[in-house]
Amino acid sequence: MHRKYIITDEWKIIEKGFDPALHPCSESLFSIGNGRMGQRANFEETYSGRSMQGSYIGGVYYPDKTRVGWWKNGYPEYFAKVINSVNWIGIDISIDGQPLDLAKVKVSGFYRELNMKEGYLLRKFTAQFDEFKTLEVEALRFISMKRHEIGAIRYSITPRGFSPKISYTPYLDFDVYNEDSNYGEKFWDEVFTSVASQKAINVAATKKTNFHVAAAMRYELEADSRHLTLYPENIKREKYVANRFEINAQAGTTYTLYKYAAITSSLNYPIEKIAEEADYKASEAMRAGFDALLEEQKKAWAAIWETSDIVIEGDPEAQQGIRFNIFQLNQTYTGEDERLNIGPKGFTGEKYGGVTYWDTEAYCFPFYLSTRDPQVARNLLLYRYRHLPKAIENACKLGFTDGAALYPMVTINGEECHNEWEITFEEIHRNGAMVKAIHRYVEYTGDFRYLADYGLEVMIAIARFWAQRFNWSEEKQQYVMLGVTGPNEYENNINNNFYTSYIARWCLEYTLQTIELLKNQYPKELSDVFQKTNFDTQSEPILWKKIISNIYFPYSEKYQIYLQQEGYLDKIQQLASEIPHTQRPINQHWSWDRILRSCFIKQADTLQAFYFFEDHFTTDEHQRHFDFYEPRTVHESSLSPCVHVVLAAKLGKLDKAYELYLRTSRLDLDDYNKEVHEGLHITSMAGTWMSVVEGFGGMRVRNQQLYFNPVLPRHWKRLSFKIIFHGRILEINTSHQGTTITRHTGDPLRLDLKGQLIEV
Amino acid sequence: MHRKYIITDEWKIIEKGFDPALHPCSESLFSIGNGRMGQRANFEETYSGRSMQGSYIGGVYYPDKTRVGWWKNGYPEYFAKVINSVNWIGIDISIDGQPLDLAKVKVSGFYRELNMKEGYLLRKFTAQFDEFKTLEVEALRFISMKRHEIGAIRYSITPRGFSPKISYTPYLDFDVYNEDSNYGEKFWDEVFTSVASQKAINVAATKKTNFHVAAAMRYELEADSRHLTLYPENIKREKYVANRFEINAQAGTTYTLYKYAAITSSLNYPIEKIAEEADYKASEAMRAGFDALLEEQKKAWAAIWETSDIVIEGDPEAQQGIRFNIFQLNQTYTGEDERLNIGPKGFTGEKYGGVTYWDTEAYCFPFYLSTRDPQVARNLLLYRYRHLPKAIENACKLGFTDGAALYPMVTINGEECHNEWEITFEEIHRNGAMVKAIHRYVEYTGDFRYLADYGLEVMIAIARFWAQRFNWSEEKQQYVMLGVTGPNEYENNINNNFYTSYIARWCLEYTLQTIELLKNQYPKELSDVFQKTNFDTQSEPILWKKIISNIYFPYSEKYQIYLQQEGYLDKIQQLASEIPHTQRPINQHWSWDRILRSCFIKQADTLQAFYFFEDHFTTDEHQRHFDFYEPRTVHESSLSPCVHVVLAAKLGKLDKAYELYLRTSRLDLDDYNKEVHEGLHITSMAGTWMSVVEGFGGMRVRNQQLYFNPVLPRHWKRLSFKIIFHGRILEINTSHQGTTITRHTGDPLRLDLKGQLIEV
Repeated sequence: MHRKYIITDEWKIIEKGFDPALHPCSESLFSIGNGRMGQRANFEETYSGRSMQGSYIGGVYYPDKTRVGWWKNGYPEYFAKVINSVNWIGIDISIDGQPLDLAKVKVSGFYRELNMKEGYLLRKFTAQFDEFKTLEVEALRFISMKRHEIGAIRYSITPRGFSPKISYTPYLDFDVYNEDSNYGEKFWDEVFTSVASQKAINVAATKKTNFHVAAAMRYELEADSRHLTLYPENIKREKYVANRFEINAQAGTTYTLYKYAAITSSLNYPIEKIAEEADYKASEAMRAGFDALLEEQKKAWAAIWETSDIVIEGDPEAQQGIRFNIFQLNQTYTGEDERLNIGPKGFTGEKYGGVTYWDTEAYCFPFYLSTRDPQVARNLLLYRYRHLPKAIENACKLGFTDGAALYPMVTINGEECHNEWEITFEEIHRNGAMVKAIHRYVEYTGDFRYLADYGLEVMIAIARFWAQRFNWSEEKQQYVMLGVTGPNEYENNINNNFYTSYIARWCLEYTLQTIELLKNQYPKELSDVFQKTNFDTQSEPILWKKIISNIYFPYSEKYQIYLQQEGYLDKIQQLASEIPHTQRPINQHWSWDRILRSCFIKQADTLQAFYFFEDHFTTDEHQRHFDFYEPRTVHESSLSPCVHVVLAAKLGKLDKAYELYLRTSRLDLDDYNKEVHEGLHITSMAGTWMSVVEGFGGMRVRNQQLYFNPVLPRHWKRLSFKIIFHGRILEINTSHQGTTITRHTGDPLRLDLKGQLIEV
Repeated sequence: MHRKYIITDEWKIIEKGFDPALHPCSESLFSIGNGRMGQRANFEETYSGRSMQGSYIGGVYYPDKTRVGWWKNGYPEYFAKVINSVNWIGIDISIDGQPLDLAKVKVSGFYRELNMKEGYLLRKFTAQFDEFKTLEVEALRFISMKRHEIGAIRYSITPRGFSPKISYTPYLDFDVYNEDSNYGEKFWDEVFTSVASQKAINVAATKKTNFHVAAAMRYELEADSRHLTLYPENIKREKYVANRFEINAQAGTTYTLYKYAAITSSLNYPIEKIAEEADYKASEAMRAGFDALLEEQKKAWAAIWETSDIVIEGDPEAQQGIRFNIFQLNQTYTGEDERLNIGPKGFTGEKYGGVTYWDTEAYCFPFYLSTRDPQVARNLLLYRYRHLPKAIENACKLGFTDGAALYPMVTINGEECHNEWEITFEEIHRNGAMVKAIHRYVEYTGDFRYLADYGLEVMIAIARFWAQRFNWSEEKQQYVMLGVTGPNEYENNINNNFYTSYIARWCLEYTLQTIELLKNQYPKELSDVFQKTNFDTQSEPILWKKIISNIYFPYSEKYQIYLQQEGYLDKIQQLASEIPHTQRPINQHWSWDRILRSCFIKQADTLQAFYFFEDHFTTDEHQRHFDFYEPRTVHESSLSPCVHVVLAAKLGKLDKAYELYLRTSRLDLDDYNKEVHEGLHITSMAGTWMSVVEGFGGMRVRNQQLYFNPVLPRHWKRLSFKIIFHGRILEINTSHQGTTITRHTGDPLRLDLKGQLIEV
């Protein structure tokens, strides 16, 4: 059974007392990262209890071959696995010949803290060898936000009541495995190792993908701040390098080992340079010293919080939850490297493989757009722009022609990295999210030039896909879209999914509008795009308009609602509240067959259209569709509650909004789905931000203008959040007394607060 | 490119000249088996060219773990692999220290023959070492139809122009692999080996499934019929035992090695006995001697042909084709062991895994029912009866209750052994085929007692499944069946598939009729079944009748046809003839996505209902549906053409019938689909029989009475086939002059020939 054990604190995630059963969960929750790499909260010293080792490097993956009983043409050939990489934290400790292993010694005073404000992981405990012999240990580590390739550890031991021999083995180990790998497969081959006194280098390459990664280490030891000279033994095994040395420790003295690791990869350097680079960076880090590195770290995090913090008064758990989400998002993606993206588990676990889902565009985009420099959101768009040729190739494999593009459902390199046809071939609505993100970016920033330089090219390719994907039905005398899977993945291969057809139509419309817009503003660039894409200015717009004007959308006269898909009402109609509690979540209790045939909805589907295209529908329509669909929704995707919070808040259903908010904001901290040991739900964390800012904050952007319409859950005293908008940092403060908006930087700005235009 | 190379002969499959590129195809075509085990036509001696080793034992499999990107509840956990078993044919030969290897020596006079009349494989060739040194080799082998565990080989070598040292290494080898296995996985563990002079035993067990298989061998050598005394060296390696000896051969002398192998398994004996049994059987076989064993073999095959031969005069290729089909069917399944069944590739390849598909009931059943003792067809039914508890368990996993059964799509042991949800969860029409086979059996044999003893129990469980699988649609005010895959696997997860709903309704009706029938004939047994199945004689029939009377069948007023599924006409309507030749078969050229969205039909779907329930429809309806659906059918299942032959023949479309017949009868011999190297299409071979007997022979059975309505393709001079009916062997002879029916055994019989009741 799930046990709530994280101690509430506004700026920290805290665990007190050591429970081995919870350790794998904590390993996820206390993960650290810097957008380039990340590390689960595994222990530095040996641990023989249950643990999932996880050290991940952005962009480094392994292609796991697809295997199905009946292979079909066009199936993606592999599933991109996020692989466990070098163990750089390892410091094996022996006390008088006995390994220090929390699974084997008596532990007291265990304390673990993820300091979100300053960006480090701290752990303290006392290991009790017998009544009179104890060892106080304190370990602090971080991955530097400033130095992208550096991790640093301060590991202190203080013996009490005895003066043991302490043996230290700091190491670098590529002989690691993935928890989800079959047949004990390993993914790394040794390339080169070198070990000398107090330094080592370990270079390995991934099988098949041949990514080269180098890890280098330095370390030093102090006794009560006094530097000790060491004469370590060098150790080399396959894919493993270490030093080992022993000291005669004195009771009451604190021995502090500083370990500095640098990890470089062939993504950033020529293969022949990575070892040298790693070695140099590790050495540079040690020269700077641990305290200076930690100081840099604190500053980097202070800058992040400066523009992205959210304050919730009157609800400490909600406060902790939202900061945890913001913290993890910033650990996962910093937006500086446009080759990287936001994995559903970030750097906290192996699950889902790949890295990039439509989550990025549909859920994460607004967070980065509002809390970071516009360059970050732009890099997220450019990531997809760079993948456009692969998306065209992907559509081509499926039989589409003339530059139509289908973005992959899951990718790490532009290729489709998932391998189930009902998702890769059919869950094509993701293409719409790509355009929606461009639209959002332009609406928010007013950077129309982006459309001319990059956006339109992507939009034309996607519009072409939609134009080919609709087909004319002689029977209906309308355009239909057959065989799709909507956002509600509890339906597969359905016809005329409202959301997919709706966003497809909107893509066609918006592309035509953009062409009109650029005709005036960027005629030269437009003509370049036409040439590059071989655009037929005659026939293509004609066909698109023809389709736009006559698409079949299933509609129920009885309920006065658009149907999620054609035939939805042939299903037995039930409400989620009728499902016995013991059968929830249904995806853990029901067969896939039963789920597919039920009316239950995994996550916002029709309502996703209402969220994305709010202004296309009347409030009455919002109300009717929400009242029909939400009660049929089981919210078994981490991405579901957030959209509903925004809609519920808009409709004044504050209790519903808060109930759903609880499901999203502390999903991982309270382990609602009993799966946090597998890693965190990173992309849904951005949805949590969205539910606060767009839901309770009521923020909207239309034509580069901000609108706020805040509503506060009853017991919240104050909600305050910051956003970056057109170069200004704005702080929005809402209490039950009213809302104030403060401009921290930049020129005055006009915006709409609760229907009134004000100047800030 | 495909090359037609098999030489036409009425009773033999013949290959002349050795082409290494064709060898893997020949390995399939020249396979031998006895219903218990089988062996591809691999060479006895070493062969370093392209080859797929294949030695298969009925019922011995390995569960290959299912792996998908997103695991869903209820997914079958494994895919049952047919595994390559002990190499018992191996006899390595060295000539003056040089291995005899057809990939490396010059070969002339290569001749390979599968003698279908007598049931053996013969191969002759001359190996040329230089201009003056040649070796004549002749190898003949068979797997005994009489002694189920025995294989025998006669291997003769005659040196010409030189007197070489010949080294022989007869062996038994379990260190084999599957061509389709990943990571070089092997499926056998060594259990026990023993080797002595001129005999050896090798016992191995399968991983995970722990089947134990023992192979034993004996051999002897003759020089020109003179027995030679040998002093062989014993060889043992992991999972491998052999003897090796050398002789100083004389030019012109023929050296003949007789090798006898016995293979026993834990399916038939206690594990501790299998080695002893194998050893004994091998010894017994050698005592009987090769010639006596071969004589037994010829007799056994003569008996088979006696009741199952088909003669086609005027079309030698058709003659060879139909005999090849009948021969392979009898090699695959003899009907004596009710635990075995008919794999789609029989014992000729690895593909498709599992063993039992609905092919057995829908396509193979009539062949065995008409050409073998009724016990054989009854054993096929009992196979499913024995699996009923597993079928109930299978339905239970999917959420069905109260004794509803869903038979697996693919099985080897009663469990679902396939692993794609759109097939296992949705291609549920297979349940209908189970009942159809019972119905056919009773119609043919009049064995109503079977219904009371076994049949009804299966039927009730299946009817319960259908009653739960239909659901009431408030919208349509009818019962609908959502989310199924019909026989046309080029559609997945469709609603209201005509075939599935139709056969489901028929199952409900036939079960109710059977209950009525048994009330009179077997009241005691009926009450036992009611008790055993906990049947509610009140509510269940009421519900079933309610469903029967109000099922939604999609229908087009425009075309006056039942639609394959709801919404079928929303697809772009095209004919198969419009597909460019270069894109056929579409499953090798189009993406699965494109195939799913096209209107093209893989195999009879709506027309399968017309085939099964011919008398439910008028000839006009037959005509309209055939004319609509057949042109949209690409026949890319080996099971497709046969059904269409029967329908076309009935509708008098003789040219169409013959065109389609060509696609089925020599599918493998002429390698139409360029895949014969993977193995033969065993189950479709029964479909070929069906197209001759039911199509051109026009045979039907209604209420235990035979009907014949023969029609002959223009250039066939005569068609003659035999069937067993109610204890009589009948021979039906049709020429363009008319039809005669001869009774070979038993009492006179009344039957209907071309609408006239006659007595034979």
